[in-house]
Amino acid sequence: MKLYYSPGACSLADHIALIESGLPFTTVKVDLKAKTTASGEDYRQINPKGYVPALRLDDGEVLTENIAILSFIADKAEKLEPSGGFAHWRVLETTAFVSTELHKNFKPFFSPDSTDEAKAQAGNILGKRFALLEERLGDRSFIVGDTLTIADCYLFVMLMWAKTKVGLTLPSRLDTYFERLKQSPSFAQALSDEGLAN
Amino acid sequence: MKLYYSPGACSLADHIALIESGLPFTTVKVDLKAKTTASGEDYRQINPKGYVPALRLDDGEVLTENIAILSFIADKAEKLEPSGGFAHWRVLETTAFVSTELHKNFKPFFSPDSTDEAKAQAGNILGKRFALLEERLGDRSFIVGDTLTIADCYLFVMLMWAKTKVGLTLPSRLDTYFERLKQSPSFAQALSDEGLAN
Repeated sequence: MKLYYSPGACSLADHIALIESGLPFTTVKVDLKAKTTASGEDYRQINPKGYVPALRLDDGEVLTENIAILSFIADKAEKLEPSGGFAHWRVLETTAFVSTELHKNFKPFFSPDSTDEAKAQAGNILGKRFALLEERLGDRSFIVGDTLTIADCYLFVMLMWAKTKVGLTLPSRLDTYFERLKQSPSFAQALSDEGLAN
Repeated sequence: MKLYYSPGACSLADHIALIESGLPFTTVKVDLKAKTTASGEDYRQINPKGYVPALRLDDGEVLTENIAILSFIADKAEKLEPSGGFAHWRVLETTAFVSTELHKNFKPFFSPDSTDEAKAQAGNILGKRFALLEERLGDRSFIVGDTLTIADCYLFVMLMWAKTKVGLTLPSRLDTYFERLKQSPSFAQALSDEGLAN
């Protein structure tokens, strides 16, 4: 498998999940402005939508959309998501929440023509969503159940954006959770591989 | 199962999928402003996030997030999504695309304090996404493969919003697809049940 990524983009979640999965994979860095890969390919030929992540399988099929790629990795690896029982749906529910209620609300911070008002409004919504996740996390180590899942991989990237790109202050338990994940081997490896270790 | 919905909201996708699934279910209308159900319950006690859809299972568990609920319905019904093979992932990919790239871009149209500029920008993005789906649909009857899936149920609602709430003009094949689905039994039934038949 080949993961098309951009350093620190939401594709970092898939990068972490792939390392954690133990599945064999390689990575290809994408220049999102030029829409070219590090080896000079036209990225729109690989993913016509032009954004990352994209996962090219060994048979040539290309899968896009973070929720689908993360779920696919978990399914193939038989890790990072309970395969049966209601916990399976809790993981998908939480991954979808991270995508639609966190990820999408960062948009005003990354758009050059956003107003300060739009940014303030988005920051306010993100604050409410983080408060809900803080309560959901409680004293546990992971956002769903007692083991690392794809939901943690995706949530980690959103918390990183909140801290480093937007300058939001995280609620204390979420912040501790973030800092702990950051030090754990798969997360540290992915950050290092994307040139983001500090 | 009990589906908490608001007429014409994205919960309509789940309503259609439930009718199509043949699984037994009831519906409960939610007043999203007052955050109460038709029977006077506090909706925040059911879904602390306060939005629809929510699906209460017979054992009392409440599942939220459209992608998770639609996937759950398809899994239980063994319909509306191929259970094996790569087509399964194409359905999840497309459902995630509808949620994150269509649904979320309607936001400026539903926010009372959105600027005309924000609406124009969102309309422009939606137009590009619809063009991509128009090409993807081609001459087929459904957005993934040759049978109705949860991705069609969700896409249908977004096309309805585009036409009736925003006044966008759909590309011709998508428009034909929308009008055909609208007349099909499960879709017509859901629209009628939500008081939206015309």
